Amino acid sequence: MAGDGSLRREYLGIDESGVRAMSGVLYGVGLGPGDPELMTLRAHRLIAGAEVLAYPSLAGGASFARSIAAGIIPEGAREIVMDVPMTPERAPAQAAYDKGAAEIADALEQGQDVVCLCEGDPFFYGSFMYLFARLSTRYRVEVVPGVTSVTTCAARAGMPLAARNERLTVLPGPLPEAELRARIDGAESVVIMKVGRHLAKIRGVIEELGLTGRAVYVERASLPEEVVCPLAEAPQVAPYFSMILLTKGADPWL
Amino acid sequence: MAGDGSLRREYLGIDESGVRAMSGVLYGVGLGPGDPELMTLRAHRLIAGAEVLAYPSLAGGASFARSIAAGIIPEGAREIVMDVPMTPERAPAQAAYDKGAAEIADALEQGQDVVCLCEGDPFFYGSFMYLFARLSTRYRVEVVPGVTSVTTCAARAGMPLAARNERLTVLPGPLPEAELRARIDGAESVVIMKVGRHLAKIRGVIEELGLTGRAVYVERASLPEEVVCPLAEAPQVAPYFSMILLTKGADPWL
Ligand SMILES: C[S@@+](CC[C@H](N)C(=O)[O-])C[C@H]1O[C@@H](n2cnc3c(N)ncnc32)[C@H](O)[C@@H]1O
Ligand SMILES: C[S@@+](CC[C@H](N)C(=O)[O-])C[C@H]1O[C@@H](n2cnc3c(N)ncnc32)[C@H](O)[C@@H]1O
Repeated sequence: MAGDGSLRREYLGIDESGVRAMSGVLYGVGLGPGDPELMTLRAHRLIAGAEVLAYPSLAGGASFARSIAAGIIPEGAREIVMDVPMTPERAPAQAAYDKGAAEIADALEQGQDVVCLCEGDPFFYGSFMYLFARLSTRYRVEVVPGVTSVTTCAARAGMPLAARNERLTVLPGPLPEAELRARIDGAESVVIMKVGRHLAKIRGVIEELGLTGRAVYVERASLPEEVVCPLAEAPQVAPYFSMILLTKGADPWL
Repeated sequence: MAGDGSLRREYLGIDESGVRAMSGVLYGVGLGPGDPELMTLRAHRLIAGAEVLAYPSLAGGASFARSIAAGIIPEGAREIVMDVPMTPERAPAQAAYDKGAAEIADALEQGQDVVCLCEGDPFFYGSFMYLFARLSTRYRVEVVPGVTSVTTCAARAGMPLAARNERLTVLPGPLPEAELRARIDGAESVVIMKVGRHLAKIRGVIEELGLTGRAVYVERASLPEEVVCPLAEAPQVAPYFSMILLTKGADPWL
């Protein structure tokens, strides 16, 4: 009974009676990394039956999450689009999530379920947590986990992530150079997310540590435009949907 | 084209012509954490159409992976069961994977595809990597990623794993106490896998670090027997399928 936010409410000391009994359920649905066939059966069922959908669209662009689900969104379903600006300050994005959360709350109050579309997994570096933080104390929220980009990139690279008693460290590419270096140096298997415009910096750090030969670059994993190659052969310009995998074992594959 | 092991072969300097053109494909299929509805559409399609299945069974017990797929395994499909002994030495398990790999290779040589069932994701602390290491240089191997236990436990606990530029560290519970302490101390979000009989040790370390109030215990996530509770309220005895999640943010949920 915890996936509905009840454990969170317990931590916050909120009585279960604070949850609206007649209101709808907010589903945070992970869609996987991009290939629609990598969505779960539950995601498929919830989306195909949805009356109200919600998703963020970054800086006015098309929503990646919506594109994954496009083939099964029911005709006539209502779509709540949260237009999230990509600014260095956080206030504009917060305002967008506030507005989206209010629209979603309205639908829930009317007894409608709302299916929020999330690329990958909703709680793994996903924006769904901003809606969860705003709504899970008042409404039933159910999170449906999805296949993450991390294991998808590993699958596509043919590169096991972690075995036995190995540690796995996930680092965001925007971290400062010195911190990246320190974290990679002390790690075993490493995944670097959000590569994009940080590619040159990350590459430099990995090269300095003498680990380039163990690093693989993956772009748009599971999509037709996918790129998988040794980091040494990676393009100079990386899109936002790219990742670097690094293993330190004797053979990158065992 | 890398998910078929070609990048691995390139690293190892093996010519693509070494891959048997007429032989079948070995699929390493992630089944998700236990609830059959958390399997991907692709896993469902491959299993429902399988002629030959393979999976490990630990120490003569029932196979968890097989139980997840049980409802869709075609009647009459051949099942290659690898009986993996749970001994401290690695040789007996290695012999079991050698034997399984040989049986799988026979089927592939005859042009049959083989679907290997893997709980969670095949490359995330999964035993599929032992088959991959044995077979991917000679046969086409395709890894189908699955929902991991990590994001499932987070979903069920209502606890986002990592946001923005946070780091995420995955640690196996069998690590020595001192190492666990050092790794947790330097980390942000932490996931501790393979808790089982290491529960008391892990609990002690988290308590010493003053982090018990931020830790959640999850057992058999997504299954009917699921347990989710604050670590302080966890049972004294944990099964193998249990995990501890720890966040260090101001509010565990943001
Ligand atoms: C905001 S995070 C979202 C992660 C997502 N929630 C998940 O579970 O994978 C975005 C980052 O995920 C990674 N990513 C997402 N989809 C990807 C894909 N198909 N191929 C490669 N990287 C991907 C990239 O590193 C990207 O910068
Ligand atoms: C050998 S690892 C396999 C992990 C799996 N390949 C995955 O992707 O989740 C086994 C460990 O995964 C975790 N685990 C797997 N399924 C779980 C579940 N349903 N609930 C809680 N933990 C689980 C436990 O920590 C267990 O000791």
